[in-house]
Amino acid sequence: MSRDSGPDPKMRDVPIGIHAEGTRQEFDSMGTVEVPADRYWGAQTQRSLVHFSIGTDRMPKEVYHAYGYVKKAAALVNAAAGRLPGWKRDAIVRAAEEAIAGELDDHFPLFVWQTGSGTQSNMNVNEVIANRASQLLGGTLGTQEPVGPNDDVNMGQSSNDSFPTAMHIASVREIEEHLLPQCRELAASIEAKAEEWEEIVKIGRTHLEDAVPLTVGQEWSGYAAQLRACVEEIEHCRDGLLALALGGTAVGTGLNAPKDFSRDVAARIAELTGTPYVTAGNKFMAQGSLDPMVRAHSALRGLAVALMKIANDMRWLASGPRTGFAELVLPQNEPGSSIMPGKVNPTQCEAIVMIAIQVLGDDSAVAFAGSQGNFELNAMRPVIINNFLHSARILADGMEKFREFSVAGTQLNRDRIASYVDESLMLVTALSPTIGYQNAAHIAESALAHDQTLKEAALDSGLVDEKTFDSLVSPLAMVRHGASGA
Amino acid sequence: MSRDSGPDPKMRDVPIGIHAEGTRQEFDSMGTVEVPADRYWGAQTQRSLVHFSIGTDRMPKEVYHAYGYVKKAAALVNAAAGRLPGWKRDAIVRAAEEAIAGELDDHFPLFVWQTGSGTQSNMNVNEVIANRASQLLGGTLGTQEPVGPNDDVNMGQSSNDSFPTAMHIASVREIEEHLLPQCRELAASIEAKAEEWEEIVKIGRTHLEDAVPLTVGQEWSGYAAQLRACVEEIEHCRDGLLALALGGTAVGTGLNAPKDFSRDVAARIAELTGTPYVTAGNKFMAQGSLDPMVRAHSALRGLAVALMKIANDMRWLASGPRTGFAELVLPQNEPGSSIMPGKVNPTQCEAIVMIAIQVLGDDSAVAFAGSQGNFELNAMRPVIINNFLHSARILADGMEKFREFSVAGTQLNRDRIASYVDESLMLVTALSPTIGYQNAAHIAESALAHDQTLKEAALDSGLVDEKTFDSLVSPLAMVRHGASGA
Amino acid sequence: MSRDSGPDPKMRDVPIGIHAEGTRQEFDSMGTVEVPADRYWGAQTQRSLVHFSIGTDRMPKEVYHAYGYVKKAAALVNAAAGRLPGWKRDAIVRAAEEAIAGELDDHFPLFVWQTGSGTQSNMNVNEVIANRASQLLGGTLGTQEPVGPNDDVNMGQSSNDSFPTAMHIASVREIEEHLLPQCRELAASIEAKAEEWEEIVKIGRTHLEDAVPLTVGQEWSGYAAQLRACVEEIEHCRDGLLALALGGTAVGTGLNAPKDFSRDVAARIAELTGTPYVTAGNKFMAQGSLDPMVRAHSALRGLAVALMKIANDMRWLASGPRTGFAELVLPQNEPGSSIMPGKVNPTQCEAIVMIAIQVLGDDSAVAFAGSQGNFELNAMRPVIINNFLHSARILADGMEKFREFSVAGTQLNRDRIASYVDESLMLVTALSPTIGYQNAAHIAESALAHDQTLKEAALDSGLVDEKTFDSLVSPLAMVRHGASGA
Amino acid sequence: MSRDSGPDPKMRDVPIGIHAEGTRQEFDSMGTVEVPADRYWGAQTQRSLVHFSIGTDRMPKEVYHAYGYVKKAAALVNAAAGRLPGWKRDAIVRAAEEAIAGELDDHFPLFVWQTGSGTQSNMNVNEVIANRASQLLGGTLGTQEPVGPNDDVNMGQSSNDSFPTAMHIASVREIEEHLLPQCRELAASIEAKAEEWEEIVKIGRTHLEDAVPLTVGQEWSGYAAQLRACVEEIEHCRDGLLALALGGTAVGTGLNAPKDFSRDVAARIAELTGTPYVTAGNKFMAQGSLDPMVRAHSALRGLAVALMKIANDMRWLASGPRTGFAELVLPQNEPGSSIMPGKVNPTQCEAIVMIAIQVLGDDSAVAFAGSQGNFELNAMRPVIINNFLHSARILADGMEKFREFSVAGTQLNRDRIASYVDESLMLVTALSPTIGYQNAAHIAESALAHDQTLKEAALDSGLVDEKTFDSLVSPLAMVRHGASGA
Repeated sequence: MSRDSGPDPKMRDVPIGIHAEGTRQEFDSMGTVEVPADRYWGAQTQRSLVHFSIGTDRMPKEVYHAYGYVKKAAALVNAAAGRLPGWKRDAIVRAAEEAIAGELDDHFPLFVWQTGSGTQSNMNVNEVIANRASQLLGGTLGTQEPVGPNDDVNMGQSSNDSFPTAMHIASVREIEEHLLPQCRELAASIEAKAEEWEEIVKIGRTHLEDAVPLTVGQEWSGYAAQLRACVEEIEHCRDGLLALALGGTAVGTGLNAPKDFSRDVAARIAELTGTPYVTAGNKFMAQGSLDPMVRAHSALRGLAVALMKIANDMRWLASGPRTGFAELVLPQNEPGSSIMPGKVNPTQCEAIVMIAIQVLGDDSAVAFAGSQGNFELNAMRPVIINNFLHSARILADGMEKFREFSVAGTQLNRDRIASYVDESLMLVTALSPTIGYQNAAHIAESALAHDQTLKEAALDSGLVDEKTFDSLVSPLAMVRHGASGA
Repeated sequence: MSRDSGPDPKMRDVPIGIHAEGTRQEFDSMGTVEVPADRYWGAQTQRSLVHFSIGTDRMPKEVYHAYGYVKKAAALVNAAAGRLPGWKRDAIVRAAEEAIAGELDDHFPLFVWQTGSGTQSNMNVNEVIANRASQLLGGTLGTQEPVGPNDDVNMGQSSNDSFPTAMHIASVREIEEHLLPQCRELAASIEAKAEEWEEIVKIGRTHLEDAVPLTVGQEWSGYAAQLRACVEEIEHCRDGLLALALGGTAVGTGLNAPKDFSRDVAARIAELTGTPYVTAGNKFMAQGSLDPMVRAHSALRGLAVALMKIANDMRWLASGPRTGFAELVLPQNEPGSSIMPGKVNPTQCEAIVMIAIQVLGDDSAVAFAGSQGNFELNAMRPVIINNFLHSARILADGMEKFREFSVAGTQLNRDRIASYVDESLMLVTALSPTIGYQNAAHIAESALAHDQTLKEAALDSGLVDEKTFDSLVSPLAMVRHGASGA
Repeated sequence: MSRDSGPDPKMRDVPIGIHAEGTRQEFDSMGTVEVPADRYWGAQTQRSLVHFSIGTDRMPKEVYHAYGYVKKAAALVNAAAGRLPGWKRDAIVRAAEEAIAGELDDHFPLFVWQTGSGTQSNMNVNEVIANRASQLLGGTLGTQEPVGPNDDVNMGQSSNDSFPTAMHIASVREIEEHLLPQCRELAASIEAKAEEWEEIVKIGRTHLEDAVPLTVGQEWSGYAAQLRACVEEIEHCRDGLLALALGGTAVGTGLNAPKDFSRDVAARIAELTGTPYVTAGNKFMAQGSLDPMVRAHSALRGLAVALMKIANDMRWLASGPRTGFAELVLPQNEPGSSIMPGKVNPTQCEAIVMIAIQVLGDDSAVAFAGSQGNFELNAMRPVIINNFLHSARILADGMEKFREFSVAGTQLNRDRIASYVDESLMLVTALSPTIGYQNAAHIAESALAHDQTLKEAALDSGLVDEKTFDSLVSPLAMVRHGASGA
Repeated sequence: MSRDSGPDPKMRDVPIGIHAEGTRQEFDSMGTVEVPADRYWGAQTQRSLVHFSIGTDRMPKEVYHAYGYVKKAAALVNAAAGRLPGWKRDAIVRAAEEAIAGELDDHFPLFVWQTGSGTQSNMNVNEVIANRASQLLGGTLGTQEPVGPNDDVNMGQSSNDSFPTAMHIASVREIEEHLLPQCRELAASIEAKAEEWEEIVKIGRTHLEDAVPLTVGQEWSGYAAQLRACVEEIEHCRDGLLALALGGTAVGTGLNAPKDFSRDVAARIAELTGTPYVTAGNKFMAQGSLDPMVRAHSALRGLAVALMKIANDMRWLASGPRTGFAELVLPQNEPGSSIMPGKVNPTQCEAIVMIAIQVLGDDSAVAFAGSQGNFELNAMRPVIINNFLHSARILADGMEKFREFSVAGTQLNRDRIASYVDESLMLVTALSPTIGYQNAAHIAESALAHDQTLKEAALDSGLVDEKTFDSLVSPLAMVRHGASGA
């Protein structure tokens, strides 16, 4: 498609923005469309705005930032292969960098509920970068000259390969930059507590019922271990996102992309991002399914499951201050009630529980959507990336607040903790190897029925003398198998 | 709590807004807090912003609009009972009306992920209305005078009863104003198509395989019937939301609310909204559970299930234009592909499918959250109302776009439809009562194996003569049991 | 399809069972198959056993019992219309009655994971009834004479209309015979407790934290109210199942069924079952979707949500015996621990919680499956009916055991309950209308900080005198708005 | 707990089984219970049968087989440590081996819906092994002599650590023995098809609409790649199950277990099973959560998602035989319809789709249950292991049938496939790099509008000559980027 001759256009240093009012005409293969004159987007973006203004869910900005890498890398590879002149490359690269930096966010207005391939968002990127590049090169907006959205910015690409590529990049970045750091920090914060409280003996509870003792530190070490396992699993699932579809073009065959484009463009993205991306081993899977995204979300779901346990334990152990377990004292961040004066509620824990529930709901949606691919395309991409980034974000932010405003300031009610250990009948378990399970059971039952201490009932039973009792029933001794348990 | 003497303050006509910069001090029972000087909110809202800036999910504005009714009705009932002076009532009522109208939206900034009771949003409303009312009465912001958030605006209420009340009101309004109208319009639009195409005979398909014929109108009548049933179910579930918790106060006993407050305030809300609200028959259920919300969401989920069937049918029947079913021609709203020129995709259908999947995910979250109440409170309210309003909104908007940009403009490819009827072998079913199932089966198999028409194979079999064949195998006759089927 | 002449065969009183060993040949349109000689089933059942022996999930027997009504009613209507001779009708009716009674259960071996239309189970019924009827009429098994599975037993029917009909009948029976009675009995049992304990004042808890008092009876009245609402919703959803697809035949048009067959056969089923079934208003919906089943399952899901709240409350309130809330004493049905002697666990509550979780999982599957219909058939029927009957059954049985072995024998720990009321600081709320929210808050905080009773702190504050305190802070007075709350 | 003196009892070779009728008395700490005389179980099993006969879900036998390893290993380690005499060890080991072999299955009757710790199933194992061992040693059933369920068989164990250990072992065995082999075989079967059909050019479809070509082999290579990735993920999640809780006893501290018991017993289980089990790094996590099970189920869910795509593609591509895509011809395993003669349906695909949906429902339940741990125990174990084994089993069996009866026999309709390639307009994409996207789009639109071939329209446009067209628009050339795509 020859365009013109003459010297190459020169790129100028035009700041971002279009100083115009009203509308201008943009066109695509279906005809012309009026778009807001101060926006870079073109005809297809505008059509999408008309047809898909549904609810308030916008395609997350992170997708566009990630797309910036796609467009930049493609331009570099295309230029290196002699398919794109250097001056076009430079302008596209600059506009793409602006997209990466979030400086063009106002020009990406589309909704989540659009075409299932993400084509409209890809075209939004193509149009914005093309117009921005054309602006930088002195072109006239609306002419698609000198840089066109399809033939130049989208060169060698399809939405079918570029959108899942952007999904992976956006997800990996969210994981790396927010989710994993917050998860690790929360684990570390809990580990610090576990260490601080490693000698505080408390009563254990199973089935919500009194059981044998452990230390507070042991209990919290379990929380930390859950989170550390989540970190590993998230890392594992992130690795599954390093394989990129880009280069498969329309259906995975790579039509209209040159030889080695897949390999080269993945290498370029790896270089630009500092993340070891590679080209996907099978492009028909990479475009016909979104299995790696489904798997990645299951790691988020696993984190939600762990957090729910932790937050629930904390709020139950803090219940009170007088008529509940009351072992923990959570920081008071705000008045708890609009009607009950002086009430303190475990609000950070509740937020985490609600976030966990939401992530499980999002996870259901992602798995369902992941199953609905047909032939050469899974056309459920927007709903998947939106849920993924949503889950990752509320988990990361939620963990940050939970750590900062709940975990870090949690105190022990040591008197209460100690008195529970004294009162519990389940210490009888320590007698079991010596006097047998049945005898031990009858001692516990008798103590409960007669409102005795365990020791009183044990001695009354005649099955054990005081010295033996004292040597066996020692809470501290009963927990002595190490910080992580037996 | 007597405050002062002197003449009653007079309400002035101060426009909405605070002309101030920087911050001002607000206080609550925990102390003072700096808040943005140009916002009406107070200390507790500010605390929540600090502690709960999680993700981008804000408590939906519809909750605050609904809360306006709660606060207005409470003020009217409290004043009528002599608990609130008339001048306070008038100021509170005016501020509440501004909240209802959405004029105070900028002053409700809180996130979804907050305390599970919604207390922080209730306090946000109390603070904003108190400050706005105080402003109208010439008070000084930050003093809680002359109108206080807890003692005046929240009088006789708790978050525990007022928040679920606002949830119900917001949900009913969303159902009435957007969801049901859009659902009815979509059904009507489909019914018009069903009528238009009631005589067009097409091949039926079961198990995705060729089956016996029906008319296009009959097929579409099924879609419409699904939607009409959804309308009924949504109405049914909406009715379950008409019972309001308000008056139960902290735990359902109505402590600190006067006798008959429940009944009176529900009646007042009914009057103000024109919707037949009543006080809930059991306040412990109304506050300890959110069962009516869970049930209401299941009606949304039912709609999602129906829409998915309809949208899927439409996009499959439109698949082509040359190598698919190609019975339907959907409107072309935009270029379909960034790489494949001339491609038209069923983008509205895809949006509906993704919306349906999201609603099922939201539904999972709502049910899970609904199950997590404890004792006198289900502290999962924000996640439930956010999902409910989200689902309702994307369904309503999605149906509007789907109707306008897909259903209304759908055309038939009548040649293709007719040729399928001619080709199908399953018309053999009409011979079955005469020649028996087994014989009929062998004719169909023979036709397929020898690439014959059904008639050729039938005559070849010697089991039926031409006249009999023609009289029995008449597509038009085969569908003649009425527009809604047998 | 003329078969023969001669006198009508006479039905003999042959007991159920085939005295034969090894195999016999059966045939269908694809050829002959060896089947176990002592089974009534035919070729298609045997083929399904070969191809679909997946896991251990068998099509629930209730489906076959329900199918008995379908076949019986069809035979009666076909005979009345002169399409089926009386002697065939009688034999089919007798065999169908045996199916209804469960006497042929051993002859229905198929798996859930089969064809999505349920055709194989319909053919299983057709084959068994045909062979049993032929046996009664002196025919030779394997000849399909004198009664054939397709032409006689399946006359005027398709799996496409008969299977969803059987699904509805089976579901309604399960609802009527087990689920609703058990739900009502559990509600009644809880109501009896609520009445018994209506005067016992206890501390309320919101956010798991101490709140203002209510009575135990009030708390339990909330549980009962939840269940009563579930009963109503289940009844509502059951009514949606009364519309039957039967008569739509293959695609809803009623091909090969005579005029009025739909209406007549529904009337006949209503008469036979004593349940007011009617023919579905739109057959394309009734066969292309399973929306009423999806809606019906959401009522089960609603019950699961309510039960989870109730069972959770009970097990938390029973936690102890010494270091938890310990307000309730649940019956001890078994030793709780294999290692901790004397341990009593809330096992019935745990079973209910697990059942509730399973029902929510089943519900997800049902909704997903409900959305996957295509064209004239939703081919996800087996997974839907299996989940529906599973959920209904475990809910009904679970409620029975929970009532019998947990609710009925639950006792109060009255000392503990009373001491909590004495200790709680949240009674301060009663002072709030008199001294203001902020002052009341400071009293509560001071009491907590200095380990005082509320009264001590209140008097210390100087804001209230003893007489006022005693008159306002009366737990009994604080709960006096009625058994169902304010 | 001294019992007696005298010579050690000798083990005799008594075959499995108790020749007795009626009942015998068994006892536990709560008293005596009548149990069926011909069963090995004891008092606690019988109590559970009375209290928990809920539905038809029985604890899967695989759990008991796995428990056999636990009991055998514990006996060996206890004996090696001198805590258990050799003659007891031998008898327990033999009984445990019988349990592993499934020979005692009839003695494990309990339901899934029981105590959430699985204690009742642990006690069932303890009782059966104790009685069987006592029988082998000449003891009298009902006396708990010479081998007792708690003190001997359960020595050093708790349900709290042994049940999750059995869950892991049962799950790993199911994965190793059925799921992975079937998944690998299905992948291999699909790979064989991919290779067989690697040169067959077909039209691609995106958004269900005609797109550019690929080969059938490429399309199927995508399916295989999905399955291979699932295999890897299942292996990864299996590895997470290799860490065993055993040794943590009641709450994770290892109370009543000797030093190094955890390490030794895991090593012994590894030796007995040939699987590299190790003791869990943190016992509080291993008993307070079931996170590794939740993660493992997400791998099953990932497989379900992949299978749904594959099965859906197959059934859609086989739709016809005359009025659908009809590219594939699936094996006809059975008559498809009870009313439509000659109908062939994609029944294996439907079974797979339903299985996939069920697995997603099961997955929801598992994740929910996984989140509901409290303190030192997640008491949702039975619902989790039942769903896990259920999902794994129906996936494995379903894949086997799907491969054997659908994939292996699938044929191509090569004429249809070729004609689609000829007709499709999307080959125009190959012109795009030469004549530009817009021009190419107009050619495609013109061809559609005028019912032309692409070539006709292209030549009419004047933008390309015949030679260029033929060189660019070559379906075979368009797919030439390799078997796995670009």
